[in-house]
Amino acid sequence: MSTLYVLGVGPGDKQLLTPKASAAIEKSTDLVAYGLYLDLLGELCDGKKHHDLPLGEEIGRARLALDLAAQGKTTALISSGDIGIYAMATLVFELLDQQLQGNEQNPQWLDVEIEVVPGISAMQAGASRVGAMLGHDFCTISLSDLLTPWQTIEKRLHACGQGDFVVSFYNPKSKKRDWQINTARDILLQYRPASTPVLIGRQLTREDESITITTLEKLHADDVDMFTLVSVGNSESRHILNGNKEWVYTPRGYSKKL
Amino acid sequence: MSTLYVLGVGPGDKQLLTPKASAAIEKSTDLVAYGLYLDLLGELCDGKKHHDLPLGEEIGRARLALDLAAQGKTTALISSGDIGIYAMATLVFELLDQQLQGNEQNPQWLDVEIEVVPGISAMQAGASRVGAMLGHDFCTISLSDLLTPWQTIEKRLHACGQGDFVVSFYNPKSKKRDWQINTARDILLQYRPASTPVLIGRQLTREDESITITTLEKLHADDVDMFTLVSVGNSESRHILNGNKEWVYTPRGYSKKL
Repeated sequence: MSTLYVLGVGPGDKQLLTPKASAAIEKSTDLVAYGLYLDLLGELCDGKKHHDLPLGEEIGRARLALDLAAQGKTTALISSGDIGIYAMATLVFELLDQQLQGNEQNPQWLDVEIEVVPGISAMQAGASRVGAMLGHDFCTISLSDLLTPWQTIEKRLHACGQGDFVVSFYNPKSKKRDWQINTARDILLQYRPASTPVLIGRQLTREDESITITTLEKLHADDVDMFTLVSVGNSESRHILNGNKEWVYTPRGYSKKL
Repeated sequence: MSTLYVLGVGPGDKQLLTPKASAAIEKSTDLVAYGLYLDLLGELCDGKKHHDLPLGEEIGRARLALDLAAQGKTTALISSGDIGIYAMATLVFELLDQQLQGNEQNPQWLDVEIEVVPGISAMQAGASRVGAMLGHDFCTISLSDLLTPWQTIEKRLHACGQGDFVVSFYNPKSKKRDWQINTARDILLQYRPASTPVLIGRQLTREDESITITTLEKLHADDVDMFTLVSVGNSESRHILNGNKEWVYTPRGYSKKL
Protein backbone atom coordinates (compact mmCIF):
# COMPACT_ATOMS: atom_id res chain seq x y z
CA MET A 1 0.00 0.00 0.00
CA SER A 2 1.31 3.40 -0.90
CA THR A 3 0.27 7.00 -0.49
CA LEU A 4 -1.36 9.32 -2.98
CA TYR A 5 -1.01 12.97 -2.02
CA VAL A 6 -3.67 15.10 -3.65
CA LEU A 7 -2.34 18.60 -3.26
CA GLY A 8 -2.70 22.22 -4.32
CA VAL A 9 0.35 24.41 -4.75
CA GLY A 10 -1.40 27.77 -4.49
CA PRO A 11 -1.80 30.46 -7.12
CA GLY A 12 1.82 30.62 -8.31
CA ASP A 13 4.00 32.50 -5.82
CA LYS A 14 6.15 29.82 -4.18
CA GLN A 15 5.89 31.74 -0.92
CA LEU A 16 2.21 30.73 -0.86
CA LEU A 17 2.99 27.00 -1.13
CA THR A 18 2.39 25.43 2.27
CA PRO A 19 5.16 23.44 4.01
CA LYS A 20 2.73 20.50 4.09
CA ALA A 21 2.47 20.49 0.29
CA SER A 22 6.24 20.92 -0.11
CA ALA A 23 6.87 17.98 2.23
CA ALA A 24 4.40 15.81 0.31
CA ILE A 25 6.17 16.58 -2.97
CA GLU A 26 9.53 15.78 -1.36
CA LYS A 27 8.24 12.41 -0.16
CA SER A 28 6.85 11.50 -3.60
CA THR A 29 8.74 9.71 -6.35
CA ASP A 30 6.11 10.39 -8.99
CA LEU A 31 4.34 13.64 -9.81
CA VAL A 32 1.19 13.81 -11.92
CA ALA A 33 0.58 17.36 -13.03
CA TYR A 34 0.15 19.75 -15.89
CA GLY A 35 3.66 20.89 -16.82
CA LEU A 36 3.12 24.59 -16.19
CA TYR A 37 2.44 24.00 -12.49
CA LEU A 38 5.70 22.13 -12.05
CA ASP A 39 7.60 24.92 -13.78
CA LEU A 40 6.33 27.24 -11.05
CA LEU A 41 7.73 24.91 -8.39
CA GLY A 42 11.22 24.69 -9.87
CA GLU A 43 13.89 22.62 -8.14
CA LEU A 44 11.46 21.14 -5.61
CA CYS A 45 10.52 18.72 -8.41
CA ASP A 46 14.05 17.77 -9.44
CA GLY A 47 14.71 14.04 -9.58
CA LYS A 48 11.02 13.11 -9.53
CA LYS A 49 9.35 11.26 -12.35
CA HIS A 50 7.02 13.72 -14.02
CA HIS A 51 3.87 12.39 -15.65
CA ASP A 52 2.31 15.06 -17.81
CA LEU A 53 -0.91 14.83 -19.74
CA PRO A 54 -2.50 17.55 -21.86
CA LEU A 55 -5.02 19.97 -20.36
CA GLY A 56 -8.44 18.42 -20.73
CA GLU A 57 -7.13 14.95 -19.82
CA GLU A 58 -8.28 15.30 -16.22
CA ILE A 59 -9.79 11.84 -15.96
CA GLY A 60 -6.66 10.24 -17.37
CA ARG A 61 -4.56 12.15 -14.89
CA ALA A 62 -6.63 11.03 -11.90
CA ARG A 63 -6.57 7.39 -13.09
CA LEU A 64 -2.83 7.53 -13.63
CA ALA A 65 -2.24 8.93 -10.14
CA LEU A 66 -4.34 6.16 -8.54
CA ASP A 67 -2.59 3.53 -10.68
CA LEU A 68 0.90 4.72 -9.75
CA ALA A 69 0.09 4.77 -6.04
CA ALA A 70 -1.53 1.33 -6.31
CA GLN A 71 1.73 0.10 -7.84
CA GLY A 72 3.51 1.14 -4.67
CA LYS A 73 4.87 4.50 -5.78
CA THR A 74 4.44 7.42 -3.45
CA THR A 75 2.66 9.79 -5.80
CA ALA A 76 1.57 13.42 -5.78
CA LEU A 77 -1.34 14.56 -7.91
CA ILE A 78 -0.84 18.30 -8.23
CA SER A 79 -3.05 21.25 -9.17
CA SER A 80 -2.48 24.96 -8.88
CA GLY A 81 -4.61 26.78 -6.30
CA ASP A 82 -6.53 24.50 -3.95
CA ILE A 83 -6.91 21.04 -5.49
CA GLY A 84 -10.25 20.74 -3.69
CA ILE A 85 -11.70 23.80 -5.45
CA TYR A 86 -12.54 23.29 -9.15
CA ALA A 87 -9.63 20.92 -9.50
CA MET A 88 -8.64 17.27 -9.44
CA ALA A 89 -9.44 16.12 -5.89
CA THR A 90 -13.10 15.44 -6.47
CA LEU A 91 -12.31 13.32 -9.55
CA VAL A 92 -10.14 10.96 -7.48
CA PHE A 93 -13.04 10.30 -5.13
CA GLU A 94 -15.49 10.02 -8.01
CA LEU A 95 -13.31 7.23 -9.44
CA LEU A 96 -13.10 5.50 -6.06
CA ASP A 97 -16.86 5.75 -5.77
CA GLN A 98 -17.26 4.12 -9.19
CA GLN A 99 -14.95 1.31 -8.09
CA LEU A 100 -16.92 0.83 -4.86
CA GLN A 101 -20.09 0.58 -6.94
CA GLY A 102 -18.52 -2.03 -9.18
CA ASN A 103 -18.37 0.17 -12.27
CA GLU A 104 -14.57 0.05 -12.44
CA GLN A 105 -12.19 -2.92 -12.52
CA ASN A 106 -9.48 -1.46 -10.29
CA PRO A 107 -9.89 -2.93 -6.78
CA GLN A 108 -6.24 -2.07 -6.07
CA TRP A 109 -7.26 1.62 -5.95
CA LEU A 110 -9.12 0.93 -2.71
CA ASP A 111 -5.87 0.11 -0.91
CA VAL A 112 -4.27 3.45 -1.68
CA GLU A 113 -3.80 5.76 1.29
CA ILE A 114 -5.08 9.18 0.22
CA GLU A 115 -4.12 12.48 1.80
CA VAL A 116 -5.56 15.74 0.51
CA VAL A 117 -3.56 18.92 1.13
CA PRO A 118 -5.38 22.23 0.60
CA GLY A 119 -3.83 25.29 -1.02
CA ILE A 120 -4.47 29.01 -1.41
CA SER A 121 -7.12 29.44 -4.10
CA ALA A 122 -7.19 32.18 -6.74
CA MET A 123 -10.09 34.02 -5.07
CA GLN A 124 -8.00 34.36 -1.90
CA ALA A 125 -4.94 35.57 -3.79
CA GLY A 126 -7.10 38.09 -5.63
CA ALA A 127 -8.89 39.34 -2.54
CA SER A 128 -5.62 39.80 -0.66
CA ARG A 129 -3.99 41.72 -3.52
CA VAL A 130 -6.76 44.33 -3.51
CA GLY A 131 -7.54 44.40 0.23
CA ALA A 132 -10.43 42.41 1.63
CA MET A 133 -12.93 41.71 -1.10
CA LEU A 134 -14.13 38.45 0.52
CA GLY A 135 -14.83 40.20 3.81
CA HIS A 136 -18.41 38.93 4.03
CA ASP A 137 -20.52 36.03 2.73
CA PHE A 138 -19.38 34.94 -0.70
CA CYS A 139 -19.80 32.25 -3.32
CA THR A 140 -17.86 30.79 -6.20
CA ILE A 141 -19.30 29.85 -9.59
CA SER A 142 -17.49 28.13 -12.43
CA LEU A 143 -18.63 29.57 -15.74
CA SER A 144 -17.56 26.47 -17.66
CA ASP A 145 -20.55 24.67 -19.14
CA LEU A 146 -18.47 21.72 -20.34
CA LEU A 147 -19.43 19.62 -17.30
CA THR A 148 -22.33 21.62 -15.84
CA PRO A 149 -25.46 22.50 -17.85
CA TRP A 150 -25.72 26.25 -18.45
CA GLN A 151 -29.19 26.13 -16.91
CA THR A 152 -27.64 25.14 -13.56
CA ILE A 153 -25.04 27.88 -13.83
CA GLU A 154 -27.71 30.45 -14.63
CA LYS A 155 -29.77 29.31 -11.64
CA ARG A 156 -26.72 29.87 -9.43
CA LEU A 157 -26.08 33.30 -10.89
CA HIS A 158 -29.62 34.34 -9.98
CA ALA A 159 -29.26 32.82 -6.51
CA CYS A 160 -25.99 34.71 -6.07
CA GLY A 161 -27.77 37.92 -7.03
CA GLN A 162 -30.73 37.29 -4.74
CA GLY A 163 -28.44 36.45 -1.83
CA ASP A 164 -26.18 39.45 -2.52
CA PHE A 165 -23.09 37.26 -2.22
CA VAL A 166 -19.66 38.47 -3.27
CA VAL A 167 -18.87 36.10 -6.14
CA SER A 168 -15.68 34.78 -7.69
CA PHE A 169 -15.94 33.38 -11.19
CA TYR A 170 -13.62 30.50 -12.01
CA ASN A 171 -13.08 29.43 -15.63
CA PRO A 172 -14.60 32.70 -16.84
CA LYS A 173 -13.52 32.15 -20.45
CA SER A 174 -11.62 29.78 -22.69
CA LYS A 175 -10.72 29.59 -26.35
CA LYS A 176 -14.08 28.04 -27.12
CA ARG A 177 -16.22 29.88 -24.60
CA ASP A 178 -16.46 33.66 -24.55
CA TRP A 179 -20.03 34.79 -23.88
CA GLN A 180 -20.59 33.42 -20.36
CA ILE A 181 -18.93 36.21 -18.43
CA ASN A 182 -20.97 38.87 -20.20
CA THR A 183 -24.18 36.97 -19.50
CA ALA A 184 -23.15 36.57 -15.85
CA ARG A 185 -22.58 40.33 -15.68
CA ASP A 186 -26.01 41.05 -17.15
CA ILE A 187 -27.71 38.74 -14.66
CA LEU A 188 -25.92 40.31 -11.69
CA LEU A 189 -26.82 43.80 -12.95
CA GLN A 190 -30.44 42.86 -12.26
CA TYR A 191 -29.58 42.62 -8.57
CA ARG A 192 -26.72 44.99 -7.70
CA PRO A 193 -25.54 48.47 -8.72
CA ALA A 194 -23.72 49.10 -12.00
CA SER A 195 -20.97 50.69 -9.88
CA THR A 196 -20.28 47.48 -7.91
CA PRO A 197 -16.49 46.97 -7.74
CA VAL A 198 -15.05 44.16 -9.84
CA LEU A 199 -11.57 42.66 -9.67
CA ILE A 200 -10.03 41.27 -12.83
CA GLY A 201 -6.90 39.44 -11.72
CA ARG A 202 -4.66 37.79 -14.30
CA GLN A 203 -1.81 35.42 -13.43
CA LEU A 204 -2.28 36.32 -9.77
CA THR A 205 0.90 36.37 -7.64
CA ARG A 206 2.98 35.36 -10.68
CA GLU A 207 5.68 37.42 -12.38
CA ASP A 208 3.34 38.72 -15.06
CA GLU A 209 0.46 39.44 -12.67
CA SER A 210 -1.96 42.16 -13.74
CA ILE A 211 -4.74 43.52 -11.60
CA THR A 212 -7.57 45.74 -12.78
CA ILE A 213 -10.31 47.13 -10.61
CA THR A 214 -13.36 48.12 -12.60
CA THR A 215 -17.14 48.17 -12.17
CA LEU A 216 -19.80 45.58 -12.88
CA GLU A 217 -21.16 47.71 -15.70
CA LYS A 218 -17.75 47.82 -17.41
CA LEU A 219 -16.88 44.14 -16.98
CA HIS A 220 -16.41 42.67 -20.46
CA ALA A 221 -15.21 39.37 -21.90
CA ASP A 222 -12.59 41.24 -23.93
CA ASP A 223 -10.68 41.94 -20.71
CA VAL A 224 -10.76 38.35 -19.49
CA ASP A 225 -8.99 35.16 -20.51
CA MET A 226 -8.43 31.66 -19.15
CA PHE A 227 -5.70 32.85 -16.75
CA THR A 228 -8.05 35.35 -15.16
CA LEU A 229 -10.03 35.34 -11.95
CA VAL A 230 -13.02 37.68 -11.82
CA SER A 231 -14.50 38.64 -8.45
CA VAL A 232 -17.58 40.84 -8.13
CA GLY A 233 -18.34 42.65 -4.88
CA ASN A 234 -21.69 42.61 -3.13
CA SER A 235 -23.94 45.68 -3.01
CA GLU A 236 -21.93 47.07 -0.07
CA SER A 237 -18.40 46.47 -1.35
CA ARG A 238 -16.32 49.63 -1.53
CA HIS A 239 -13.53 50.73 -3.87
CA ILE A 240 -11.35 53.29 -2.10
CA LEU A 241 -8.43 55.39 -3.26
CA ASN A 242 -5.58 56.47 -0.99
CA GLY A 243 -3.18 58.49 -3.13
CA ASN A 244 -1.98 56.09 -5.82
CA LYS A 245 -3.11 53.03 -3.85
CA GLU A 246 -6.50 51.50 -4.43
CA TRP A 247 -8.32 48.93 -2.39
CA VAL A 248 -11.58 47.00 -2.48
CA TYR A 249 -13.18 45.70 0.68
CA THR A 250 -16.52 44.20 1.64
CA PRO A 251 -17.62 45.42 5.07
CA ARG A 252 -18.85 43.04 7.74
CA GLY A 253 -20.93 45.68 9.40
CA TYR A 254 -18.56 47.09 11.99
CA SER A 255 -19.24 50.63 10.79
CA LYS A 256 -22.25 50.85 13.09
CA LYS A 257 -19.83 50.43 15.96
CA LEU A 258 -16.80 52.43 14.79
CA MET B 1 6.44 54.93 6.93
CA SER B 2 6.24 51.37 8.08
CA THR B 3 4.53 48.17 7.02
CA LEU B 4 1.43 46.54 8.41
CA TYR B 5 1.16 42.89 7.47
CA VAL B 6 -2.41 41.67 7.65
CA LEU B 7 -2.05 37.92 7.66
CA GLY B 8 -3.80 34.61 8.22
CA VAL B 9 -1.94 31.71 9.79
CA GLY B 10 -4.26 28.93 8.58
CA PRO B 11 -6.45 26.62 10.63
CA GLY B 12 -3.90 25.56 13.23
CA ASP B 13 -1.46 23.02 11.82
CA LYS B 14 1.82 24.90 11.44
CA GLN B 15 2.47 22.92 8.27
CA LEU B 16 -0.38 24.89 6.70
CA LEU B 17 1.18 28.27 7.51
CA THR B 18 2.56 29.74 4.27
CA PRO B 19 6.22 30.79 4.03
CA LYS B 20 4.98 34.27 3.10
CA ALA B 21 3.11 34.58 6.40
CA SER B 22 6.06 33.17 8.36
CA ALA B 23 8.40 35.67 6.72
CA ALA B 24 6.04 38.55 7.52
CA ILE B 25 5.94 37.53 11.18
CA GLU B 26 9.74 37.30 11.24
CA LYS B 27 10.07 40.82 9.82
CA SER B 28 7.64 42.26 12.37
CA THR B 29 8.55 43.63 15.78
CA ASP B 30 4.96 43.87 16.98
CA LEU B 31 2.22 41.28 16.75
CA VAL B 32 -1.45 42.11 17.29
CA ALA B 33 -3.42 38.92 17.78
CA TYR B 34 -5.67 36.93 20.02
CA GLY B 35 -3.35 34.94 22.31
CA LEU B 36 -4.55 31.50 21.27
CA TYR B 37 -3.38 32.02 17.69
CA LEU B 38 0.13 32.91 18.82
CA ASP B 39 0.26 29.82 21.02
CA LEU B 40 -0.28 27.76 17.88
CA LEU B 41 2.69 29.45 16.23
CA GLY B 42 5.13 28.80 19.07
CA GLU B 43 8.72 29.96 18.78
CA LEU B 44 8.12 31.90 15.56
CA CYS B 45 6.77 34.64 17.83
CA ASP B 46 9.62 34.65 20.34
CA GLY B 47 11.12 38.07 20.98
CA LYS B 48 8.23 39.96 19.42
CA LYS B 49 6.09 42.37 21.36
CA HIS B 50 2.69 40.74 21.69
CA HIS B 51 -0.37 42.98 21.89
CA ASP B 52 -3.35 40.97 23.00
CA LEU B 53 -6.92 42.19 23.35
CA PRO B 54 -9.93 40.14 24.41
CA LEU B 55 -12.09 38.40 21.81
CA GLY B 56 -14.79 40.83 20.76
CA GLU B 57 -12.32 43.73 20.72
CA GLU B 58 -11.86 43.50 16.96
CA ILE B 59 -12.12 47.22 16.30
CA GLY B 60 -9.60 47.99 19.03
CA ARG B 61 -7.23 45.44 17.57
CA ALA B 62 -7.41 46.90 14.06
CA ARG B 63 -6.90 50.44 15.40
CA LEU B 64 -3.94 49.32 17.48
CA ALA B 65 -2.30 47.61 14.50
CA LEU B 66 -2.68 50.74 12.34
CA ASP B 67 -1.39 52.92 15.20
CA LEU B 68 1.70 50.77 15.78
CA ALA B 69 2.58 50.70 12.08
CA ALA B 70 1.99 54.47 11.84
CA GLN B 71 4.48 54.87 14.72
CA GLY B 72 7.10 53.18 12.57
CA LYS B 73 6.89 49.68 13.94
CA THR B 74 6.72 46.83 11.47
CA THR B 75 3.53 45.17 12.65
CA ALA B 76 1.63 41.98 11.94
CA LEU B 77 -2.11 41.81 12.52
CA ILE B 78 -2.83 38.10 12.78
CA SER B 79 -5.93 35.93 12.49
CA SER B 80 -6.32 32.20 12.23
CA GLY B 81 -7.52 30.88 8.89
CA ASP B 82 -7.56 33.44 6.08
CA ILE B 83 -7.61 36.96 7.52
CA GLY B 84 -9.62 38.05 4.49
CA ILE B 85 -12.46 35.61 5.26
CA TYR B 86 -14.64 36.55 8.25
CA ALA B 87 -11.63 38.07 9.98
CA MET B 88 -9.77 41.30 10.58
CA ALA B 89 -8.62 42.40 7.11
CA THR B 90 -11.84 44.09 6.11
CA LEU B 91 -11.90 46.09 9.34
CA VAL B 92 -8.50 47.64 8.57
CA PHE B 93 -9.82 48.91 5.25
CA GLU B 94 -13.09 50.01 6.80
CA LEU B 95 -11.08 52.18 9.21
CA LEU B 96 -8.95 53.59 6.37
CA ASP B 97 -12.15 54.36 4.47
CA GLN B 98 -13.53 56.24 7.48
CA GLN B 99 -10.30 58.25 7.67
CA LEU B 100 -10.47 59.05 3.94
CA GLN B 101 -14.03 60.27 4.45
CA GLY B 102 -12.94 62.49 7.32
CA ASN B 103 -14.74 60.53 10.02
CA GLU B 104 -11.50 59.62 11.83
CA GLN B 105 -8.69 61.82 13.12
CA ASN B 106 -5.79 59.55 12.18
CA PRO B 107 -4.23 60.85 8.95
CA GLN B 108 -1.02 59.00 9.83
CA TRP B 109 -2.83 55.73 9.03
CA LEU B 110 -2.86 56.70 5.36
CA ASP B 111 0.94 56.50 5.20
CA VAL B 112 1.09 52.90 6.37
CA GLU B 113 2.14 50.36 3.75
CA ILE B 114 -0.36 47.49 3.95
CA GLU B 115 0.26 43.98 2.71
CA VAL B 116 -2.43 41.31 3.05
CA VAL B 117 -1.29 37.67 3.15
CA PRO B 118 -3.99 35.02 2.63
CA GLY B 119 -4.18 31.76 4.57
CA ILE B 120 -5.90 28.39 4.41
CA SER B 121 -9.46 28.88 5.66
CA ALA B 122 -11.39 26.42 7.83
CA MET B 123 -13.68 25.32 4.97
CA GLN B 124 -10.61 24.24 2.99
CA ALA B 125 -9.12 22.37 5.93
CA GLY B 126 -12.45 20.64 6.52
CA ALA B 127 -13.00 19.73 2.87
CA SER B 128 -9.49 18.29 2.56
CA ARG B 129 -9.85 16.19 5.72
CA VAL B 130 -12.94 14.42 4.35
CA GLY B 131 -12.02 14.33 0.66
CA ALA B 132 -13.37 16.95 -1.74
CA MET B 133 -16.50 18.47 -0.31
CA LEU B 134 -15.94 21.82 -2.08
CA GLY B 135 -15.60 20.14 -5.45
CA HIS B 136 -18.25 22.29 -7.12
CA ASP B 137 -19.83 25.74 -6.69
CA PHE B 138 -20.05 26.70 -3.03
CA CYS B 139 -20.80 29.56 -0.70
CA THR B 140 -19.98 30.62 2.83
CA ILE B 141 -22.42 32.12 5.32
CA SER B 142 -21.61 33.46 8.76
CA LEU B 143 -24.42 32.61 11.17
CA SER B 144 -23.47 35.41 13.56
CA ASP B 145 -26.19 38.04 13.72
CA LEU B 146 -24.12 40.38 15.87
CA LEU B 147 -23.07 42.47 12.85
CA THR B 148 -25.47 41.25 10.17
CA PRO B 149 -29.26 41.37 10.56
CA TRP B 150 -30.78 37.89 10.76
CA GLN B 151 -33.08 38.85 7.89
CA THR B 152 -30.03 39.16 5.60
CA ILE B 153 -28.65 35.84 6.80
CA GLU B 154 -31.99 34.16 6.20
CA LYS B 155 -32.17 35.61 2.70
CA ARG B 156 -28.75 34.12 1.98
CA LEU B 157 -29.76 30.74 3.37
CA HIS B 158 -32.69 30.63 0.95
CA ALA B 159 -30.47 31.78 -1.93
CA CYS B 160 -27.99 29.04 -1.04
CA GLY B 161 -30.80 26.52 -1.13
CA GLN B 162 -32.20 27.78 -4.43
CA GLY B 163 -28.75 27.78 -6.01
CA ASP B 164 -27.90 24.32 -4.61
CA PHE B 165 -24.51 25.58 -3.41
CA VAL B 166 -22.36 23.54 -1.06
CA VAL B 167 -22.25 25.79 2.02
CA SER B 168 -19.82 26.30 4.87
CA PHE B 169 -21.16 27.93 8.00
CA TYR B 170 -18.74 30.11 9.91
CA ASN B 171 -19.55 31.23 13.46
CA PRO B 172 -22.27 28.57 13.71
CA LYS B 173 -22.75 29.02 17.45
CA SER B 174 -21.44 30.93 20.44
CA LYS B 175 -22.18 31.09 24.14
CA LYS B 176 -24.98 33.55 23.49
CA ARG B 177 -26.24 32.20 20.16
CA ASP B 178 -27.44 28.64 19.79
CA TRP B 179 -30.54 28.48 17.56
CA GLN B 180 -29.14 29.74 14.24
CA ILE B 181 -27.63 26.48 13.06
CA ASN B 182 -30.88 24.59 13.60
CA THR B 183 -32.81 27.24 11.69
CA ALA B 184 -30.24 27.12 8.90
CA ARG B 185 -30.71 23.34 8.75
CA ASP B 186 -34.49 23.68 8.54
CA ILE B 187 -34.25 26.19 5.71
CA LEU B 188 -31.86 24.01 3.71
CA LEU B 189 -34.12 20.99 4.24
CA GLN B 190 -36.69 22.84 2.12
CA TYR B 191 -34.29 22.58 -0.82
CA ARG B 192 -32.11 19.49 -0.51
CA PRO B 193 -32.47 15.88 0.69
CA ALA B 194 -32.49 14.99 4.39
CA SER B 195 -29.65 12.59 3.57
CA THR B 196 -27.34 15.35 2.28
CA PRO B 197 -23.86 14.80 3.80
CA VAL B 198 -22.75 17.24 6.50
CA LEU B 199 -19.28 17.74 7.93
CA ILE B 200 -18.93 18.84 11.53
CA GLY B 201 -15.26 19.69 11.99
CA ARG B 202 -14.02 20.83 15.39
CA GLN B 203 -10.52 22.26 15.97
CA LEU B 204 -9.60 21.31 12.42
CA THR B 205 -5.96 20.25 11.88
CA ARG B 206 -5.20 20.85 15.57
CA GLU B 207 -4.17 18.24 18.13
CA ASP B 208 -7.70 17.81 19.45
CA GLU B 209 -9.35 17.74 16.03
CA SER B 210 -12.62 15.86 15.78
CA ILE B 211 -14.48 15.17 12.56
CA THR B 212 -18.01 13.89 12.26
CA ILE B 213 -19.81 13.14 9.04
CA THR B 214 -23.57 13.16 9.45
CA THR B 215 -26.65 14.10 7.43
CA LEU B 216 -28.54 17.36 7.10
CA GLU B 217 -31.50 15.86 8.92
CA LYS B 218 -29.34 14.94 11.92
CA LEU B 219 -27.40 18.20 12.14
CA HIS B 220 -28.10 19.72 15.55
CA ALA B 221 -26.79 22.65 17.57
CA ASP B 222 -25.92 20.28 20.42
CA ASP B 223 -23.07 18.87 18.31
CA VAL B 224 -21.64 22.27 17.39
CA ASP B 225 -19.68 24.93 19.28
CA MET B 226 -17.67 28.04 18.52
CA PHE B 227 -14.61 26.00 17.44
CA THR B 228 -16.64 24.13 14.85
CA LEU B 229 -16.96 24.48 11.11
CA VAL B 230 -20.10 23.05 9.54
CA SER B 231 -20.17 22.30 5.81
CA VAL B 232 -23.28 21.01 4.07
CA GLY B 233 -23.04 19.28 0.70
CA ASN B 234 -25.15 20.12 -2.32
CA SER B 235 -27.88 17.78 -3.60
CA GLU B 236 -25.26 15.70 -5.46
CA SER B 237 -22.61 15.40 -2.74
CA ARG B 238 -21.75 11.81 -1.88
CA HIS B 239 -20.66 10.14 1.37
CA ILE B 240 -18.73 6.97 0.55
CA LEU B 241 -17.27 4.23 2.73
CA ASN B 242 -14.14 2.28 1.85
CA GLY B 243 -13.54 -0.17 4.69
CA ASN B 244 -13.03 1.98 7.77
CA LYS B 245 -12.32 5.09 5.70
CA GLU B 246 -15.08 7.53 4.85
CA TRP B 247 -15.05 10.35 2.38
CA VAL B 248 -17.36 13.11 1.18
CA TYR B 249 -17.04 14.60 -2.27
CA THR B 250 -19.08 16.88 -4.47
CA PRO B 251 -18.88 15.80 -8.12
CA ARG B 252 -18.15 18.24 -10.92
CA GLY B 253 -19.95 16.14 -13.46
CA TYR B 254 -17.17 14.01 -14.87
CA SER B 255 -19.23 10.85 -14.29
CA LYS B 256 -20.89 11.31 -17.67
CA LYS B 257 -17.45 10.87 -19.19
CA LEU B 258 -15.88 8.21 -16.94
